[in-house]
Amino acid sequence: MTVPVAEDLSIDHILRAQQRITDLIVQTPVLESPALNNLVNGRLLFKAETLQKTGSFKFRGACHFISTLSQDEQRRGVVAYSSGNHAQAVAYAAQLFNIHATIVMPADAPRIKIENTRSYGADVILYDRMTESRESIAEAVVREKGAILLPPYDHPHTIVGQGTLALELCEQVAQLNTRLDALLVPCSGGGLAAGCALAMKARSPKTLLYTVEPEGYDDTAQSFKAGKRVAVSGKEQSLSDALMMTIPGKITFPINAEAYTGGFVVTDTQVRHAMAMAFQHLRLVVEPGGAVGLAAALSGQLDCQGKTTGIVLSGGNVDPEVFRSVLS
Amino acid sequence: MTVPVAEDLSIDHILRAQQRITDLIVQTPVLESPALNNLVNGRLLFKAETLQKTGSFKFRGACHFISTLSQDEQRRGVVAYSSGNHAQAVAYAAQLFNIHATIVMPADAPRIKIENTRSYGADVILYDRMTESRESIAEAVVREKGAILLPPYDHPHTIVGQGTLALELCEQVAQLNTRLDALLVPCSGGGLAAGCALAMKARSPKTLLYTVEPEGYDDTAQSFKAGKRVAVSGKEQSLSDALMMTIPGKITFPINAEAYTGGFVVTDTQVRHAMAMAFQHLRLVVEPGGAVGLAAALSGQLDCQGKTTGIVLSGGNVDPEVFRSVLS
Repeated sequence: MTVPVAEDLSIDHILRAQQRITDLIVQTPVLESPALNNLVNGRLLFKAETLQKTGSFKFRGACHFISTLSQDEQRRGVVAYSSGNHAQAVAYAAQLFNIHATIVMPADAPRIKIENTRSYGADVILYDRMTESRESIAEAVVREKGAILLPPYDHPHTIVGQGTLALELCEQVAQLNTRLDALLVPCSGGGLAAGCALAMKARSPKTLLYTVEPEGYDDTAQSFKAGKRVAVSGKEQSLSDALMMTIPGKITFPINAEAYTGGFVVTDTQVRHAMAMAFQHLRLVVEPGGAVGLAAALSGQLDCQGKTTGIVLSGGNVDPEVFRSVLS
Repeated sequence: MTVPVAEDLSIDHILRAQQRITDLIVQTPVLESPALNNLVNGRLLFKAETLQKTGSFKFRGACHFISTLSQDEQRRGVVAYSSGNHAQAVAYAAQLFNIHATIVMPADAPRIKIENTRSYGADVILYDRMTESRESIAEAVVREKGAILLPPYDHPHTIVGQGTLALELCEQVAQLNTRLDALLVPCSGGGLAAGCALAMKARSPKTLLYTVEPEGYDDTAQSFKAGKRVAVSGKEQSLSDALMMTIPGKITFPINAEAYTGGFVVTDTQVRHAMAMAFQHLRLVVEPGGAVGLAAALSGQLDCQGKTTGIVLSGGNVDPEVFRSVLS
């Protein structure tokens, strides 16, 4: 595995990643709803990444990362820690490459994400989010088995793989004979955001980029304002389980700070409404963390009037009980 | 409007229809789930037509039909009767072509379908399914306004438009370097089934074709057995509101009788399970009538073991209350 220097990452790396993974991933569709367009008096184009294999954009990064491993590294297997979507993505990508995966997951992760991860043949180690360190557990697996750690966001191979989403989006938007005035990207550690930044800079440099985070986990928005990485204290629980990160990545933040116009923060109530609207008007199952971009548009935080706005619906793994409560 | 003779319909008509509507419709993705594959010990390829504009395959037929109207006919507007999906499809297609639409809908159709139809600017006339005839109401609109009637299934232009779904599916399956051993198609009046039959005959003649209907509305399955169109008595309500038809179409049945190996019949309970599985493993909102094909596969009516089976998920318009009950 040869790793490019973070500062050198560019569209060329994303183009090569796209070539490597194109036969493994779903080219997820761009969808649109007249009703949602009416609600914002503008045009919303949704990148339905909920339909990606394993139900989230994380599969792009995991596939790309594993595709860069040498045969010896593949024999040693991979390990990852994740609240769920990265876990499933690494587990399934490892299965496709026929290599072993160990996944470290919080015991309170959505049941559906734990079950799915196991169904892909991975060894799952559960830990207590409040008292144990997932990094330490994963590092122990690396020491004992010689396994390769797949970071969920803060690694060039992960960032570049996830950036293929935005490259694909630009190609699809061009086919619709339009261009994006703005793009809303859900943000946790910032890997997807950074990958999108690299692609958009080359393919759609005039598009304004915004991260979106859930209340209580707005470390990226606060870091943008501060001009440096700042941590937030978080809170016990957020509906957006996939976005509960308290500090931006070391590699992702410099990329995002340069590329993004700002960061929006949405409440659980706004996210619930966005999920219900996606159900009704897009017929998509969007998980809370995947719906924050739509929440930012529908709540008026981003004024979409008269504009064409891209919205990444980044994942669709949500427990039935949560989805039921959202529809009530 | 020039209408081809039903007996002469072929892949050529579908190819021309595809050219006419390609810029108006969504090329819906083909999706797959390792978990669902495991459940049937085979490979299931889903045509996610739930993501079509207006949320169902009906949009293909409506767009194609309207695209064949002369300017004078377009000025007179269109009228359609439908339990919901055809209604929304005609209303939105008419809006795109900037012509007037009147839609006759049963008063007990899913609220979401009635609301959506109105949102596309159509005039909606509600009728009582038990005491009034939708055909008579629609015919009155034709007499009074000179409007053009768009039949929901029993018309060459409708059939051919809907057949573009299977043509697209064959192209997508070829890209996956595989072929379909069987295809499961939800069936009401048989328009989608007939369109698929025409496309599959030319593009994948070895694929075995099966219709799927809900219990109580298995007129097509019974007609296949009888070798002629027979009516069923129906029952008060089926979960699959979109498939409550009691006799096959006059034009569609001869096409389907020749092309289909048989017809499966599924229960509401099997449909609920299929919808929940599509939620969990495909992250798709599938309405009951759209999920009957998956229900036939998961219930073992079609043995999918070791085979590659195509399943049309034909629509995604379902009231939140119904979807909540399915997830419980």
